[in-house]
Amino acid sequence: MRHIISINEVSIEEIDDILDRASAIDQGAFDPDALNGKILANLFFEPSTRTQMSFVSAMLRLGGKVINLGSVEASSIVKGETLADTIRVASGYADAIVLRHPKEGAARLASEFSSVPVINAGDGAGQHPSQTLLDLFTIRQSMPLEGINVGFLGDLRYGRTAHSLATALSRYGVSIHTITPPGLELPPSLTHDLLDTGTKIVVYEHLEDIITDLDVLYVTRIQRERFPDPGAYASVALGYRVTPETLAGVSDRFILMHPLPRVDEIDPAVDAMPCAKYFEQARNGVPVRMAMLQKVLL
Amino acid sequence: MRHIISINEVSIEEIDDILDRASAIDQGAFDPDALNGKILANLFFEPSTRTQMSFVSAMLRLGGKVINLGSVEASSIVKGETLADTIRVASGYADAIVLRHPKEGAARLASEFSSVPVINAGDGAGQHPSQTLLDLFTIRQSMPLEGINVGFLGDLRYGRTAHSLATALSRYGVSIHTITPPGLELPPSLTHDLLDTGTKIVVYEHLEDIITDLDVLYVTRIQRERFPDPGAYASVALGYRVTPETLAGVSDRFILMHPLPRVDEIDPAVDAMPCAKYFEQARNGVPVRMAMLQKVLL
Amino acid sequence: MRHIISINEVSIEEIDDILDRASAIDQGAFDPDALNGKILANLFFEPSTRTQMSFVSAMLRLGGKVINLGSVEASSIVKGETLADTIRVASGYADAIVLRHPKEGAARLASEFSSVPVINAGDGAGQHPSQTLLDLFTIRQSMPLEGINVGFLGDLRYGRTAHSLATALSRYGVSIHTITPPGLELPPSLTHDLLDTGTKIVVYEHLEDIITDLDVLYVTRIQRERFPDPGAYASVALGYRVTPETLAGVSDRFILMHPLPRVDEIDPAVDAMPCAKYFEQARNGVPVRMAMLQKVLL
Repeated sequence: MRHIISINEVSIEEIDDILDRASAIDQGAFDPDALNGKILANLFFEPSTRTQMSFVSAMLRLGGKVINLGSVEASSIVKGETLADTIRVASGYADAIVLRHPKEGAARLASEFSSVPVINAGDGAGQHPSQTLLDLFTIRQSMPLEGINVGFLGDLRYGRTAHSLATALSRYGVSIHTITPPGLELPPSLTHDLLDTGTKIVVYEHLEDIITDLDVLYVTRIQRERFPDPGAYASVALGYRVTPETLAGVSDRFILMHPLPRVDEIDPAVDAMPCAKYFEQARNGVPVRMAMLQKVLL
Repeated sequence: MRHIISINEVSIEEIDDILDRASAIDQGAFDPDALNGKILANLFFEPSTRTQMSFVSAMLRLGGKVINLGSVEASSIVKGETLADTIRVASGYADAIVLRHPKEGAARLASEFSSVPVINAGDGAGQHPSQTLLDLFTIRQSMPLEGINVGFLGDLRYGRTAHSLATALSRYGVSIHTITPPGLELPPSLTHDLLDTGTKIVVYEHLEDIITDLDVLYVTRIQRERFPDPGAYASVALGYRVTPETLAGVSDRFILMHPLPRVDEIDPAVDAMPCAKYFEQARNGVPVRMAMLQKVLL
Repeated sequence: MRHIISINEVSIEEIDDILDRASAIDQGAFDPDALNGKILANLFFEPSTRTQMSFVSAMLRLGGKVINLGSVEASSIVKGETLADTIRVASGYADAIVLRHPKEGAARLASEFSSVPVINAGDGAGQHPSQTLLDLFTIRQSMPLEGINVGFLGDLRYGRTAHSLATALSRYGVSIHTITPPGLELPPSLTHDLLDTGTKIVVYEHLEDIITDLDVLYVTRIQRERFPDPGAYASVALGYRVTPETLAGVSDRFILMHPLPRVDEIDPAVDAMPCAKYFEQARNGVPVRMAMLQKVLL
């Protein structure tokens, strides 16, 4: 049985295989009854609108069906049930589990108690492999992954999606360029790990210092709740806001990405620019997750 | 692509077409695989048990599938995402959107950002076209719409369903009779609009003054929260309560309607009377919404 | 039309029929399109993770579809709608109703107003027949029901599942052995009813006095909230905790059951023992509920 817990455990060959399948699916090459008779248990212990909706859509488009945990506040968990017990029970009702959980390590633990494959849909500060795969897929739609220049803008300290994508990209010989407010830099341990793979990392204070050399700019949300007061947040956020002006002079193949939800980080005036790929990126969640579900269920 | 945002934009011919289709569906004449492979995103930004359940039932009965927003309190919206962004993302996951939203105008805005058809399932004080269509359908099951006498009882100031139905009926040359507590009369602007179409409007203080002349009595809920105290509510509500006695002498084809939920407005003793059509009216939501989904998805 | 409200109204022949069907289903002998075109309304007025998920899984595995009530806090019920009205409306949207409700008697009332079959999925201190059937099914997987020795450990005063199972087992000539903390004994009225059927009931203070003679031990959760303070709960709970040591010397066919969720009542070290059947018991909810759904819908 095959779980998908961390992108680090998925080989380059497997990543390529999933992305190739997703490409074919995206062009309509899939069997709408491929997962007929299969049931997915969607266990979201914290909400995630996009991830939840796109996993459900992916399962349904392949002819599968979905059962949900229901309200967590009101469930057995409140009565004191352990995650291990919940997983053992749910795996008796379904053919695969997608787990979203606020605690790092939850998906690994779930995979140890589940009698069916588990896909990690984000566990706290931990992994979120389907997000990373759809991010890679979105870049690959515009350019090969090998050797590109990828900028990361915003909160790189807490930004799980950025960590995971940077780690995955480090296998493709990319150069990483970080642009962050003070205090929200990449964690030193991750920086070390990336450098160990031979990845070049360059640190910038201002986006204008590097924007014209980037192939990809990946923007993450700077969370209001990290700042002592609204004013402190506003002044920082404003300095890292992407607008049509900050994107002046970008290369022809440049693309702008964001895991969404977007708040103030990208000016809506950017949405109409051809480089703005964040809505397509969200939409790519469906074919990529279809490929992942097929991988674990077939 | 076809959205259904306001009943005012649906022509009489289109209304007739939807109601004719719904009639056929109601008699079993539909393809249970008509919407096979299609996915509906049911985006309810506020709860509405009846509307939600009947749209889901309608989609499933046509072989389609449904994805949900999940808990709004816990979703991206709380993180500050705009409705435009949520709609752009959701329309990447589905083939049509049903939107329920507390703010008037939300459905129109959604239709501007969606890449798939949007059906308005109620937006604040605004429109709720599927309710109006099922109300028209229910009347048409008992009598032609042309030239009938329709009474509206209860809260006509805030009653969205009554406003929308009155507007739709004004195209069929009906006469409108209103019976309301002081302060809950039809808004002057709507009265003007209705008069402009040539609709006759007569205002009554007591139901007994007109009940025997009505073909239809449409009852709306008088909301407790509009009154300063429970006593004030109770005394008003009691005066506008429909009982077997208040229905004495109604005509043979008379029908009693209510959009539900019903609280004190109709005595349960009325439920068994042949004129009580409110549960059938609710049930009619399924065939009418099936016809609407086919209209936007096929 | 057939409702399933109380296990007491299901004859031994019908119980055997449902359990036989469930056995066949469990071995794969079922038509995955048996309920094609049918819609189940899953009306959970209080949460119940296991029951909800397994009813949905059961319906989907038979090719049927499911609609949900949505959030109860946010539904028409809050506006003051009666259960009778909600049921009348929901039965217009679906082909069967599964009802979970906090108030005893709710399922009976629902069956009187529903135009489609109602299955009681637990109503307060009342009945929960699908739980009882899956409990019987689980025992029958290991041994015949006739004349066995069944122990009930824990809270037998409030434990609805234990009451219902004991009543059902009383028809099979079993002997019942109760082991409870002071104050949580079987209610006198139930004791009388059981004695009236000729069932032998023996009362113990300690599990060690009877454990080696039992065929089945059914453990129920002792609820923290029944105790004045955490210390009082802990001292009682510890005395009734099942561990590998307390199970020393059990018979070869002995099985340990629990309706779950489990908190402190069973040491996780027991999970790996062959007699531990509680996760299989939970899993049995699917075939048993499939058999029940077929019974009311076909």
